[in-house]
Amino acid sequence: MKLRQLGEDRLLAQLLPDLPRAKAVHTGAGDDCALVEFRGARDLLVLKTDCVVERVHFSVQASPLEIGWKAMMRPLSDFAAVSALPEFGLVALIVPGARSTSWVRQLYRGLKRAAARFGVSIVGGETSDTPGPAALAVTVAGFVEKARRVLRSGGRPGDDLFVTGRLGGALRGKHLRFVPRIRESRWLTEDFRVRAMIDLSDGLGADLPRLARASKLGFKLELERLPLSRGCKIDNAISDGEDYELLFAVSPRERKRLEQSWRKQFPRVPLTRIGKLDQRSTINHQRLPRGYVHFQ
Amino acid sequence: MKLRQLGEDRLLAQLLPDLPRAKAVHTGAGDDCALVEFRGARDLLVLKTDCVVERVHFSVQASPLEIGWKAMMRPLSDFAAVSALPEFGLVALIVPGARSTSWVRQLYRGLKRAAARFGVSIVGGETSDTPGPAALAVTVAGFVEKARRVLRSGGRPGDDLFVTGRLGGALRGKHLRFVPRIRESRWLTEDFRVRAMIDLSDGLGADLPRLARASKLGFKLELERLPLSRGCKIDNAISDGEDYELLFAVSPRERKRLEQSWRKQFPRVPLTRIGKLDQRSTINHQRLPRGYVHFQ
Repeated sequence: MKLRQLGEDRLLAQLLPDLPRAKAVHTGAGDDCALVEFRGARDLLVLKTDCVVERVHFSVQASPLEIGWKAMMRPLSDFAAVSALPEFGLVALIVPGARSTSWVRQLYRGLKRAAARFGVSIVGGETSDTPGPAALAVTVAGFVEKARRVLRSGGRPGDDLFVTGRLGGALRGKHLRFVPRIRESRWLTEDFRVRAMIDLSDGLGADLPRLARASKLGFKLELERLPLSRGCKIDNAISDGEDYELLFAVSPRERKRLEQSWRKQFPRVPLTRIGKLDQRSTINHQRLPRGYVHFQ
Repeated sequence: MKLRQLGEDRLLAQLLPDLPRAKAVHTGAGDDCALVEFRGARDLLVLKTDCVVERVHFSVQASPLEIGWKAMMRPLSDFAAVSALPEFGLVALIVPGARSTSWVRQLYRGLKRAAARFGVSIVGGETSDTPGPAALAVTVAGFVEKARRVLRSGGRPGDDLFVTGRLGGALRGKHLRFVPRIRESRWLTEDFRVRAMIDLSDGLGADLPRLARASKLGFKLELERLPLSRGCKIDNAISDGEDYELLFAVSPRERKRLEQSWRKQFPRVPLTRIGKLDQRSTINHQRLPRGYVHFQ
């Protein structure tokens, strides 16, 4: 069978379960980031690798400054998903030898600018030649206090589902210029009990089922409530992908206080209740067009 | 200017100096690994990303099991260079959608086998489609006790230079099957004052000058002493690359004790004194064919 017939989720489901896992590993492959114990430190070490590939995640014409920005911000969006703070970045740069050095310098400017925005020190830089398209793998290391970490798996039946920002249409430009919701995520876990969270990278249609599945639940989505980007329809909000917004679950008991405090804290960022988690059975009644899934 | 006219060392020299560096960063981009402080832990957090690309680091015909092995072992060889112990691995896998799932499963078997050899837990696995050749970026996180870390930069004039194993001819197969010298490195720093160390990935002709330059010194090489792999000449030992052996500097006062204890500890691994570090001036008298350097 070819990879593109299998799809990324099923591929990873085949590869990951039998990975050996040391006691130090709280959360391994399968959530947004890895969370591990490190040498007696009180906080958890948080690790994430992500990659972008030319003609898959960006076009040949894209500005190298924006590509660098995106390559760094994607793993940082996963940090937002677990409510972690990033500290160190490593960059593996795979680029054709015929590419101009000024292209690479601009790419690095974008990487550095994105890193600086969140106080990340770039501590490693590898480069390799390639006969194919350019690609970057960025790894970020950082930390989260044990009490503040949020996984995909903590949702409970009846929890409200919220999304930040607006969904859909990211390929018109936002996917190269977004700012991960780290500040919002850290604010949320300072004062609220966020039970499950994920960042929307493949589209709500792919990522909401992932969160629900990890929590062993189904969901009810109120499609008419979805916060649409300008010019977008419900289908765009579900399937376009690359929104890099947060989707999270909190108890309805916190709804009112959350909505009020959010408006004061982030007056320019919408926070929208879009549905709720529900017993497993309901997942079959909910038919979603799929978000963007690799190899499909 | 094109990348391949500039070369990897000069490219990185242009990109890296103005990277912002936090106080927590002991050693950033430019040495074999990054060494950073983490949240009050006594030991240093060690981070390394490395990548392998089809048709650059392995051929299209190479066994996926061996490719996976190599992709994991390369960053582990950098761990050996700083005398660190690896704990966690993350894998970014860039692979064409038309590749068979069994190829990917074999690749993962190789990755897991290599990780298990050194007790590394694979805690993150990303995959991406690509219209080009397959590529893997593997990141490893681990630790080193502050007193045992070794950099490239600690060499002093008159230090003996030693290499482990034999050099040259790695492309005949060793480059896909090598075992990083982590055990040997840890043994060395338990009982000896290793002043500078590097792993030989690009060939002695490229890596020895790097160690000397980082130590602000030159070197004298006794070419006739080089430990050659079977069927290899001096040029192979200098230029073939991918030996993944250790090159290190110790005071001549430790020479005798080191050579004797090594023979007892590692009777099957040669340890060879190949020259010494010297004042900067001598570097000009030493003409070396270049090792393998990316983009050239």
